[in-house]
This record gives sequence, C-alpha cells and structure tokens, in this order.
Amino acid sequence: MKHEIRVIFGDTDQMGVVYYANYLRYFESARADYWRALGRSYRDIEAAGVALPVIEAHCAYKRPARYEDLLAIELDITEVRSASFRFVYTVHRGDELLAEGFTRHAVIGIADGRPRVMPAFMRELIEKR
Amino acid sequence: MKHEIRVIFGDTDQMGVVYYANYLRYFESARADYWRALGRSYRDIEAAGVALPVIEAHCAYKRPARYEDLLAIELDITEVRSASFRFVYTVHRGDELLAEGFTRHAVIGIADGRPRVMPAFMRELIEKR
Amino acid sequence: MKHEIRVIFGDTDQMGVVYYANYLRYFESARADYWRALGRSYRDIEAAGVALPVIEAHCAYKRPARYEDLLAIELDITEVRSASFRFVYTVHRGDELLAEGFTRHAVIGIADGRPRVMPAFMRELIEKR
Amino acid sequence: MKHEIRVIFGDTDQMGVVYYANYLRYFESARADYWRALGRSYRDIEAAGVALPVIEAHCAYKRPARYEDLLAIELDITEVRSASFRFVYTVHRGDELLAEGFTRHAVIGIADGRPRVMPAFMRELIEKR
Repeated sequence: MKHEIRVIFGDTDQMGVVYYANYLRYFESARADYWRALGRSYRDIEAAGVALPVIEAHCAYKRPARYEDLLAIELDITEVRSASFRFVYTVHRGDELLAEGFTRHAVIGIADGRPRVMPAFMRELIEKR
Repeated sequence: MKHEIRVIFGDTDQMGVVYYANYLRYFESARADYWRALGRSYRDIEAAGVALPVIEAHCAYKRPARYEDLLAIELDITEVRSASFRFVYTVHRGDELLAEGFTRHAVIGIADGRPRVMPAFMRELIEKR
Repeated sequence: MKHEIRVIFGDTDQMGVVYYANYLRYFESARADYWRALGRSYRDIEAAGVALPVIEAHCAYKRPARYEDLLAIELDITEVRSASFRFVYTVHRGDELLAEGFTRHAVIGIADGRPRVMPAFMRELIEKR
Repeated sequence: MKHEIRVIFGDTDQMGVVYYANYLRYFESARADYWRALGRSYRDIEAAGVALPVIEAHCAYKRPARYEDLLAIELDITEVRSASFRFVYTVHRGDELLAEGFTRHAVIGIADGRPRVMPAFMRELIEKR
C-alpha cells in the first residue's frame, strides 16, 4: 500500500526540513489509509471493541524532506502475533529514500485496556491483503 | 495571570519563526495555567460535568517569535455571560508585543453537549481573580 | 477552490474532536493547494523574493469534526490591496458547515522583511482565478 | 538532567491519552533544556556553525500519559563518537515509568551539511556534565 502526503509549512521547522516528530503523524495517516484500502476503517476496528495503541515507534532519517515535497509512504504489516503486530514504513520522494521506520501495536479491548486476541475479521483482512 | 513558554524547534517553521497555528496551543497552555492559578484545574471543571469548547479564536501577529525565545503570555477573562465568556491574550518577548488574540468559549454539558449556565464555583473563581 | 482533508488521530484531542489549532493547519494546506491549482506553487512565490506571512487569523467553530471525517475546505481570496490580501475559508463535512475563518496576509520581501507591492504574476493569477 | 512538561489538550488524542508523536516533541524540549543547564543553548551550538539533526528516533510506550499530567523527562548523553552521539530519555509521572526512548544525532556543518567533528566546547560540556 502506498500513501501520499504533501508537506506543509506547519510540518517543517526552522532548519527548513520536516520536523522529525511529524514522520510519526505521516505513519499514522498511512495506517488509516491502509485499513480503508482493505475495505475497513480504523473506526470499524474500534466498533469491534478493539484499539491498536502504538507500543513502540522507530524512525531512521536518511535525507530531509522539504516544503511542498510529495512524499510516498509505503507500508505493510509484519510479525502478526495473537495480540500484537508491526507496521513497517518507507518514505520516498520520487526514487530517493528519505526515511524508514516501524510501529509496534498491541491489540487491546477498549473497555478494559487489556490485551485481546486480534478479531478474526482483522486477521482475514491482513492475510488476504 | 502570566504564563511562560519556551519556543522549541517543533514550534517553528521553515521561515525560522513560530508557525501561526502554534499560538493557539500557547493560548491553551496559558488557559490551563489560569485555572490552576485560581486554585482549580480544567479537570475540576470537567468533573463538574461541564466543558468549555472554543467557539471562536482570533490572533493578530505583530512580530515573529523565534526558536528559544521565552514568551510571556498574559491573559484574562472578559465578557462573562450566562453560557459563554472570552479569554483575551497578549504574547510578549521582554517588552516587545508579538501577538494578541482572543478565544470565545461556550459553557456546555459534557453529557449532552447543550449550553449550560456556568457553574457557581467557576463564576466565583472568576469574580475574585 | 476546494481542498480535502482526512482527519487523523493526531488532529483530535481527548474531547474526541479536532483540536481547534489544527483548523489553521488545514487552512494552510488549502492555501498551498490554491496556488498549485492556479498553476503556481508557494515556492514560486518565494522564488520571486516574496513571502506572504499571516498577520491575522480567525476561526469560528460551528460543529465539531471527528476522526476519519473527510473535510472539504473551500477558500477564496478577497480584499486584495497593494501589499496585503485575505483568504476566506469554510470547512464542510458533506452538507454540514463545521467552521469558517479567514487569514490576512502581508506581502513582504524575503530579503528585508519589508512590505512590498504584490508581484504582477500573483495579481494576474488572482484576477483570472 | 530532568525536564518537566505539563500535558495540554493539544497533546492528547481522542483515546484520551498523549498522541505518540508528541513524545518526540517532549524529547526535543528536554534536549534544549539540557544544553541550557550545561550553560549553553542550542543557539550557541548553531552559532559555532554546527547542527545536530536527529538521524534516528525510538520510543517505547509503557503506560499512557493524560491531560494535565506533569511529566518528568530525564535524559542523558551516551555513545559519544567523533561525529555522532545519542540522547536517552525516560518519561515518568511520579514513580510510574510511562515511556523510554532515544535519539541519535549527527554532528554536521550548517554550511555544507557534511559530517563534522564535534566542537571542543561541546565535548567539554558533555564530559563535565
């Protein structure tokens, strides 16, 4: 799956490049798109009583992104376990690799905040992606 | 009441100045401090079943703020009506006025989202400030 | 001109609605799109030695926007003067008006920060929009 | 070194907790404070022609932080090499560990963006911290 982001002024900092924390916003934007591309939204997941909080995030910054750049975020799911999984991301501007990262997510019940087995519909979505 | 903010990289943009939307974050930070200075927190207000959503915001930008600047936000409450009121703000760096603005707030019930008369304890806090 | 925004988690706050400062980010995103739709980008304007800093911003919040909402931002330029102009915005979700606002911009020289007459190509873009 | 942050509405998301990207903002805020506590500011470092861009960032989220929480960020420098080093962070609310992370930084020349040996005054600051 590929998600596009156009860099705005509000994403940059005084070094003239995208502020490092904003890559995590881009990752989240790409994740929401990912579920929609599979035919569901994160809202559907929440409607099933489940949340997918980030329990670990990592990003390696290779080259700076700049104002008005059109960034392509590619992402996929890996390391699917009973109650957790991982998204991996790359950020490109054209052919240039700007950043790569991952987020690890727990599967928890919204009501009690406790680990929960991934709902069957999610597992199926992931398997046939 | 006076609230201090130290500008971070993440607040600036590629023009080398604080991004205009971030003044509204500074205003919110000052508001939370305002209630605490009066002996209550915004959490106490929510605990009384009331929320104070912003229904209007305005900012006039006079001079740019920059990285590491120590900003002093002064604020006060005006135009207290039965179910709304206004915060007014100035942002200074030393003697220089950088910005001034206001936010107008409704008083609503958290449960139903409908306008509500300001709780007595809030009105008293405001009167004896 | 119409610009679309998909609300992400990072735009919302604990009231479950889009945080008020983020509308100013949406406005900026729409402005950049506006120039591109006219065949130029804000980068082109900067390349002409000119910046368009926001000197005033205003937003009236009518109804809350929520996670995953697809927002349509319509905008236009008004009050074009020799060295300033105004963008006006509305934010809709389907037929519902969620917010409306404006930003006022100065036209300044990047080199000296002083007011400057709007470049002819900008004036032409605006006139034939 | 210990740096305190008060969580604002704008830092939270609709799950009622601090949005994951904002920890990287907190880390940056703590870094600026770190240099000031050593008697210099990041501006002084830039004045020496050097920038310290983040080339890698990581955060593990243990427990959620919430609105109005007073967070204590402790940080230190490790793995000092000729042209890079690492900050490590913990985020506590009282005795509870909420998050821990690191950022790795390159030392580069502002003028050319190329790796540069850490200036002597920085190395001395770090050694006698």
